[in-house]
Amino acid sequence: MFTDIQQCCMLLGTSDDILILCHKSPDGDTVGAAFGLYHALTHIGKRAAVKCSDPLPERLRYIHEGISMPEFEPRLVVAVDIADTGLLGPNLEQYAQRIDLCIDHHVSNSDYAAQTLLDSKAAAACELMYLVIRYLGVPITKPMADALYTGCATDTGCFRYSNTTARTLSTAAELIRDGASSAWINNHLFETVSKKRMELEKRIMDTLQYHFDGRCATIVMPRALLDELDAKVEELEGIVAIPRRIEGVDIAIAFRENPNGTYKISVRTEAKADASAICQQFGGGGHVRAAGCNLPGPLEQAMQALLAAAGKELGC
Amino acid sequence: MFTDIQQCCMLLGTSDDILILCHKSPDGDTVGAAFGLYHALTHIGKRAAVKCSDPLPERLRYIHEGISMPEFEPRLVVAVDIADTGLLGPNLEQYAQRIDLCIDHHVSNSDYAAQTLLDSKAAAACELMYLVIRYLGVPITKPMADALYTGCATDTGCFRYSNTTARTLSTAAELIRDGASSAWINNHLFETVSKKRMELEKRIMDTLQYHFDGRCATIVMPRALLDELDAKVEELEGIVAIPRRIEGVDIAIAFRENPNGTYKISVRTEAKADASAICQQFGGGGHVRAAGCNLPGPLEQAMQALLAAAGKELGC
Repeated sequence: MFTDIQQCCMLLGTSDDILILCHKSPDGDTVGAAFGLYHALTHIGKRAAVKCSDPLPERLRYIHEGISMPEFEPRLVVAVDIADTGLLGPNLEQYAQRIDLCIDHHVSNSDYAAQTLLDSKAAAACELMYLVIRYLGVPITKPMADALYTGCATDTGCFRYSNTTARTLSTAAELIRDGASSAWINNHLFETVSKKRMELEKRIMDTLQYHFDGRCATIVMPRALLDELDAKVEELEGIVAIPRRIEGVDIAIAFRENPNGTYKISVRTEAKADASAICQQFGGGGHVRAAGCNLPGPLEQAMQALLAAAGKELGC
Repeated sequence: MFTDIQQCCMLLGTSDDILILCHKSPDGDTVGAAFGLYHALTHIGKRAAVKCSDPLPERLRYIHEGISMPEFEPRLVVAVDIADTGLLGPNLEQYAQRIDLCIDHHVSNSDYAAQTLLDSKAAAACELMYLVIRYLGVPITKPMADALYTGCATDTGCFRYSNTTARTLSTAAELIRDGASSAWINNHLFETVSKKRMELEKRIMDTLQYHFDGRCATIVMPRALLDELDAKVEELEGIVAIPRRIEGVDIAIAFRENPNGTYKISVRTEAKADASAICQQFGGGGHVRAAGCNLPGPLEQAMQALLAAAGKELGC
């Protein structure tokens, strides 16, 4: 059932022993919103804890470092930035049927919680969480500001993506006034690249090929290369966005070879093409601008199939 | 002489036939601030024009397209985002001794104008110009908002650099509320890379070498490569920032071979090293984080000299 901010804050304000859940493969927004809420609740004397199915990312250590979570039997379970119970992950599945409150910004939210505060206009769950904490009447401390700023920044590519609104920027401005170390966070998250990532990008961009008069660009991540550089899946995140940024490219496709020789295919498109329409032909899916599918090898055959679908999508 | 916003607006409000000057090699901030002011002045019935020593950049066409500037004998000359008359460029040198008003945000401003409105806390001249236009009482129209948003975004790497303050973000939020097409501008300026630039980055990054346990990284732009790809100097802008972003790199050095075989050297540093101290040893200069110098070839010799200086700076 969908609820409003008043009811949401009433529920939080009258509860104790509150367990806050992040989604699996946690990112800056789910971690930021969870720890922002955690600090707000403990600030007003409540017992609270954050849980996640996966370990919290090392690069977000400044948010979660040094906080030891109490063990307790929760009397209120709150999911933040989680669109569906499928995103809880194996270690939190036990809570799937008993989520009392969900605070989220995904338009696709499946309304699985007893009460859901949804604001799909918010660029980040943290943008909404800021309003919740303000409505609760809790002053924003530096740890809250750092956590909430992180979510606003990561879900917008540091205020670059089209989901960034005037309210997103106003919220970030308030969080800086509240003490968020925005310069340090931006440098840490957006201006620093590991040596391995740099090498991966360089080697993968060597496979760049253009098709259909430069309207489609492909890159390949062969297993031999990924093994040679000991690349983990999360270290390849966002690489398909590189060819997508090239001027004139309407469709970017990345072919990542799985250990079993099949290919994980990621498609990113500009306004003129539908990524989801391409991937659905191969049993995959996703969004209009970002979609994926799996195909058996060899590469030449997978490439041929995808290029045929991409060409059709471009009307070539 | 330094002045305040009230005096600045008094001068603008009581003048007519106002010529607005951009700095040479114009960027988004000088062009955005100039056109923001131009629209504000014409909106209140004044005759105004923008001039620049160099052609205005093609990628900023959405700001200056379709506006034909009137010719007139100026009765007020305003320099925007220009720290010193040396930045006027050859085609505007005639105005160097007769600048009535300067609106700027560079701490190094040389106070060359009769009156200077300086706010060195502003991340962009456009952030200050927004305050000026508001103080003038002129409503911000969409062309003004697009122009001023552009300067705020370009001078901060789209709100990523450490000069971004709460006020910068609040200003950008207001400009979006005033109609700035921020999503389009961000995509156009920050998320789009030309095919040539992509190829240049790829080929130049192939020359990446680490030194001093990865604390120094060098890249080389050989003349043969630049000629092969027909690379213009402005197309190489910012490439030295790529190795600077690598984790653990305190000093990044780019060697660009000039047509005469000498080398233009750019040094970028993190907090731990002084770029200016390195370049001063070779007759160059600049800032603590960004400096440059020129050295004769061959490359091996120039590289050896720079690495010796970099090693000394790192205490290796």
